[in-house]
Amino acid sequence: MAIKISIIGASGYTGVELMRLLSDHNEAELVCVTSRQYAGKKVTSVFPSLIGFYDLEFVEPNIELISNNSEVVFTCVPHQTAMDVVPTLLKKGLKVIDLSADFRISDKDVYEKWYQSHTSPDLLKDAVYGLVEIYRDKIKTARLVANPGCYPTSTILPLYPLLKEGLIDEHSIIVDSKSGTSGAGRSLSHAILFCEVNEAFKAYKIAEHRHTPEIEQELSKACGKNVLINFTPHLVPMSRGILTTIYANVKNNVSEDELRQALSNFYNNSYFVKILPKGQFPNVLNVRGTNFCHIGLKKDVRTNRVIIISAIDNLCKGASGQAIQNMNLMAGLDEKVGLMQPGLYP
Amino acid sequence: MAIKISIIGASGYTGVELMRLLSDHNEAELVCVTSRQYAGKKVTSVFPSLIGFYDLEFVEPNIELISNNSEVVFTCVPHQTAMDVVPTLLKKGLKVIDLSADFRISDKDVYEKWYQSHTSPDLLKDAVYGLVEIYRDKIKTARLVANPGCYPTSTILPLYPLLKEGLIDEHSIIVDSKSGTSGAGRSLSHAILFCEVNEAFKAYKIAEHRHTPEIEQELSKACGKNVLINFTPHLVPMSRGILTTIYANVKNNVSEDELRQALSNFYNNSYFVKILPKGQFPNVLNVRGTNFCHIGLKKDVRTNRVIIISAIDNLCKGASGQAIQNMNLMAGLDEKVGLMQPGLYP
Amino acid sequence: MAIKISIIGASGYTGVELMRLLSDHNEAELVCVTSRQYAGKKVTSVFPSLIGFYDLEFVEPNIELISNNSEVVFTCVPHQTAMDVVPTLLKKGLKVIDLSADFRISDKDVYEKWYQSHTSPDLLKDAVYGLVEIYRDKIKTARLVANPGCYPTSTILPLYPLLKEGLIDEHSIIVDSKSGTSGAGRSLSHAILFCEVNEAFKAYKIAEHRHTPEIEQELSKACGKNVLINFTPHLVPMSRGILTTIYANVKNNVSEDELRQALSNFYNNSYFVKILPKGQFPNVLNVRGTNFCHIGLKKDVRTNRVIIISAIDNLCKGASGQAIQNMNLMAGLDEKVGLMQPGLYP
Amino acid sequence: MAIKISIIGASGYTGVELMRLLSDHNEAELVCVTSRQYAGKKVTSVFPSLIGFYDLEFVEPNIELISNNSEVVFTCVPHQTAMDVVPTLLKKGLKVIDLSADFRISDKDVYEKWYQSHTSPDLLKDAVYGLVEIYRDKIKTARLVANPGCYPTSTILPLYPLLKEGLIDEHSIIVDSKSGTSGAGRSLSHAILFCEVNEAFKAYKIAEHRHTPEIEQELSKACGKNVLINFTPHLVPMSRGILTTIYANVKNNVSEDELRQALSNFYNNSYFVKILPKGQFPNVLNVRGTNFCHIGLKKDVRTNRVIIISAIDNLCKGASGQAIQNMNLMAGLDEKVGLMQPGLYP
Repeated sequence: MAIKISIIGASGYTGVELMRLLSDHNEAELVCVTSRQYAGKKVTSVFPSLIGFYDLEFVEPNIELISNNSEVVFTCVPHQTAMDVVPTLLKKGLKVIDLSADFRISDKDVYEKWYQSHTSPDLLKDAVYGLVEIYRDKIKTARLVANPGCYPTSTILPLYPLLKEGLIDEHSIIVDSKSGTSGAGRSLSHAILFCEVNEAFKAYKIAEHRHTPEIEQELSKACGKNVLINFTPHLVPMSRGILTTIYANVKNNVSEDELRQALSNFYNNSYFVKILPKGQFPNVLNVRGTNFCHIGLKKDVRTNRVIIISAIDNLCKGASGQAIQNMNLMAGLDEKVGLMQPGLYP
Repeated sequence: MAIKISIIGASGYTGVELMRLLSDHNEAELVCVTSRQYAGKKVTSVFPSLIGFYDLEFVEPNIELISNNSEVVFTCVPHQTAMDVVPTLLKKGLKVIDLSADFRISDKDVYEKWYQSHTSPDLLKDAVYGLVEIYRDKIKTARLVANPGCYPTSTILPLYPLLKEGLIDEHSIIVDSKSGTSGAGRSLSHAILFCEVNEAFKAYKIAEHRHTPEIEQELSKACGKNVLINFTPHLVPMSRGILTTIYANVKNNVSEDELRQALSNFYNNSYFVKILPKGQFPNVLNVRGTNFCHIGLKKDVRTNRVIIISAIDNLCKGASGQAIQNMNLMAGLDEKVGLMQPGLYP
Repeated sequence: MAIKISIIGASGYTGVELMRLLSDHNEAELVCVTSRQYAGKKVTSVFPSLIGFYDLEFVEPNIELISNNSEVVFTCVPHQTAMDVVPTLLKKGLKVIDLSADFRISDKDVYEKWYQSHTSPDLLKDAVYGLVEIYRDKIKTARLVANPGCYPTSTILPLYPLLKEGLIDEHSIIVDSKSGTSGAGRSLSHAILFCEVNEAFKAYKIAEHRHTPEIEQELSKACGKNVLINFTPHLVPMSRGILTTIYANVKNNVSEDELRQALSNFYNNSYFVKILPKGQFPNVLNVRGTNFCHIGLKKDVRTNRVIIISAIDNLCKGASGQAIQNMNLMAGLDEKVGLMQPGLYP
Repeated sequence: MAIKISIIGASGYTGVELMRLLSDHNEAELVCVTSRQYAGKKVTSVFPSLIGFYDLEFVEPNIELISNNSEVVFTCVPHQTAMDVVPTLLKKGLKVIDLSADFRISDKDVYEKWYQSHTSPDLLKDAVYGLVEIYRDKIKTARLVANPGCYPTSTILPLYPLLKEGLIDEHSIIVDSKSGTSGAGRSLSHAILFCEVNEAFKAYKIAEHRHTPEIEQELSKACGKNVLINFTPHLVPMSRGILTTIYANVKNNVSEDELRQALSNFYNNSYFVKILPKGQFPNVLNVRGTNFCHIGLKKDVRTNRVIIISAIDNLCKGASGQAIQNMNLMAGLDEKVGLMQPGLYP
């Protein structure tokens, strides 16, 4: 029987993406979608891309109602809001996949330094960081999964195995990320108006983006040392996709092939991570609409640095696709269910 | 058992789109894809969006080989090439869905006036025009389906019922279409370079586009009279999608509701055609990657004209999606198999 | 000595465009720019594209101050706001170029039917419609110029001479316009977010856009008859540019060459209107950043209709460029001063 | 009297950009533009953005003719072709500004390692590297200027002063550049088709781009040491603009303000280089169509690295604008003549 699912905060881009993906998921049934802004409106009148798939209406968020109808809840609300609603959902016995940042940072002090004070710090130890390819087993039994950020997903996947194997210098890591505009959400601001993004390109939140500590937490775990990185996000005039270019000093004269092999070995059983062959590099267009992460790399022997490049769809593997991958595992399903579409090219 | 399928000319955008859609089709197996340009290369090295789905290599076109392995062939070659290869495929007993224009115009003289001389005119009477919503029954038993053009699909679907019911003046029809750039194909030309299309907008082939007689043929059938239209295609700086804006004089003071009702009635049993409610109008973004056609309309009482607007994905409902819809019918399957994805928004 | 200029409402796209163009105008000096939103901020900190050209700060609108410092004022405020501020400016003896719609419609009843009630109807008879190529002489002595709308500019220029000469049927006119997103302004709304416009294409305000009566007013003057048109605007995923495709029945079997000649004759002394030779058609990319209007046409002998296509930059010839062209005339200058840049291609 | 100018290879994007800029240059007269592809055609029929400004036709390249008519020649031909034509032009007494790479690398061996064999190595010592802000005096008396590459311009300008002052570690430099598609030229290739670039983002020529040695040559001169860098170019779905993000370790605990001050001091008399105030960062949209380079920076005290970001228009300051700036100096003019337009925003 299908898993009964609710989405709290369903009218942002990650909410709509969950609905898009769930429409093709045979084992899941969407029973409730909340949106203060659109309560009372049909989902398909607000998002006509879903015409033919849903007859639901948006409703006001109502934890009682959701608890009675659902087994799994996706919380797509902003950080700070999530920490208020999640504890109640857990108390009602629901499984929660939280797409906000509120349960990603296990160290309360670090969280509070980069965000604001945390009202449910006791839950931090229970939350499992939902990067499936690294924490698959823990996720299977989790009741609260902190779905990773989009930039962290694109950064941790390529770096984790290399740091774990001690192949790169943990002090040398520079992460230069480029994201499509859907990563900035659907809330109104001048910075994401079409005429401000089109034919434009800029960096933002330089040396102060909140995904930095999330990345550092996982990289530190990988190598057992305290890793500090430079992380610079950029805004690309496209709707979807993150390309992350990473620079690191290679240790012990390890070769390009050995670096690539380390990645291939680590992701051997992970369908959604694809290590590209020598000379081939990722393009976000190739993963558009998919749950894949493509990774390519090249060693510059002149400088002894490796350049690693990853591509994901920020809304899919970087958010809602990964959330469903987590849900599948939590429900005892194959992690690939509902996520088997190739990229929409062109 | 799965239908064995080959694609001739698989390295254009319609070929790749067929592969994308077939990857999610439970009843079909792709056995052979041809490409002179890429013969010997893995499909996934040329089109990495398909990584994880195919292990095929492109091969040189070889009718003998294809005939032995396949039951259905999609021909994605240019017009004039198609008429050379299709007869042989049919003789070998294969079913053919031709995505070129060669078998769409049933009148040889009309074809030759707009294209060039026809080398297989005898086949024209056997070919079924593959607009499922209009010719569903004929398609089920066809051995050669002429898959409709993208502009014609977006134009005939909204106009056919209105002309059939005598609700609009057949002498007054003006069709102003706007297409994404993938409609121009993947062959090299200055006109489709990024810097020539981006931040650009133009009309082209004004009053001389070859889809004109194809549209007129079907509209004439709808009303039993000889219909001449004005058709103006435009190039939009986007990859996919056609929005067609149609103007026609309303007959007998028919109301907007009656016009909409006529469309709703006609497409009542056609899942992929969606008539939008009063006040709602199509946007190509909502049908991106899908086989849907969204149709909206408004009557201007000041001028007694109806403005009808349709949106399709030119590569999907306008080409490869419709081709698979045809294949499904020819194979006795539900026409929706493999085509049940919502639009990729945003 | 340079003309002293103020801009009221300078922080929208038309305001910034005025500043861009005025920076290269030898006979004009910008003395005051108002913006409630940015008052107290340097123009270049809000709009860094102007770095190197201005040292001004935005100020709160203050009519007294503006009146003392300026000779000419551009009002770039929304309709309804304009009609409140313009009378005072005129009383103070300033010349005003109003970029809103408030003084474009000379018939108060028509204005009030499409907009709202008019608080300064007595000024309507004094306002000159600022389409230079048609009203050049009147503009030279005007104290209030109603700067034309962007869509009307792109529509009236190609149609006026043909209607004046009686070459086309005034009952048959259909205007299908496509605009870049800057035409929607810089005020926040979901409809102009990058992810809603990119890879999207739609019509809007079908049969009810407020530029309709403005177009009809001028076309009616051209032929001395009451002209009703169909006008459908569309939103294009690009920042600047309007392409307008017009359909009309040709009268008396006039030839394509005669139609083109009529336009060439009419605009013989108008530098900014370029009639393209036979077989060449406009593209908005070719007029980007310029004050030009390119016009091409083709007669379809099959249907006896002419298809006329015009391209302008909506912010320049469609707004701020035309406003400066008006200012030049009002100040006794050559209309081309400050407007002599070619298009930014690519 | 105006300088008589010819452009060899005028039908690429840099050639058209030269024509765009020269149309507004009071001291220059364009007398000859060559193009094998378009010889015999009017410039304005091939590039309608120039309608109203030129009556020239493209001609076949003819050194004799050019030498008789011109004083200054811009060579906009590919590398390897330039080294064949430039010597003859110099022998005829013309001044040459070469936009190819052939005379940028002063060390013949380095050139031949990254390009191919050099047929005019004797001219290398005469060629002046045309980065005005660094070599202004040499350029004034040069007869051959090697106009810098687009990526090098965006990289050397921000780094030169910091290396010269010894403020950053020359072994730690990582350059992550992002370019609009016009940087790839106008020659046909699949990689720059609209549908391949739109909604796409990728790195290319990783650790092997030919601009690397050009950048390293100038950075080495700045600090008097042999500098090796990592340089990764990326392709952005936009037409114009380069944003370069640079990472370097800060030496001696120098502060962010001191770094910024070093740049401000160095470029104090260089109008086209703008150092942005603390907290403000460049966006390519703000320099579109201009000869400006905007530079912003931030020090990450956690990692002791500075992140420096520059923005230029690749076709203007990165190619044709800089070429005209060079021409101005060579002709004894103010370097700003013809280059005083603000950015085209939006």
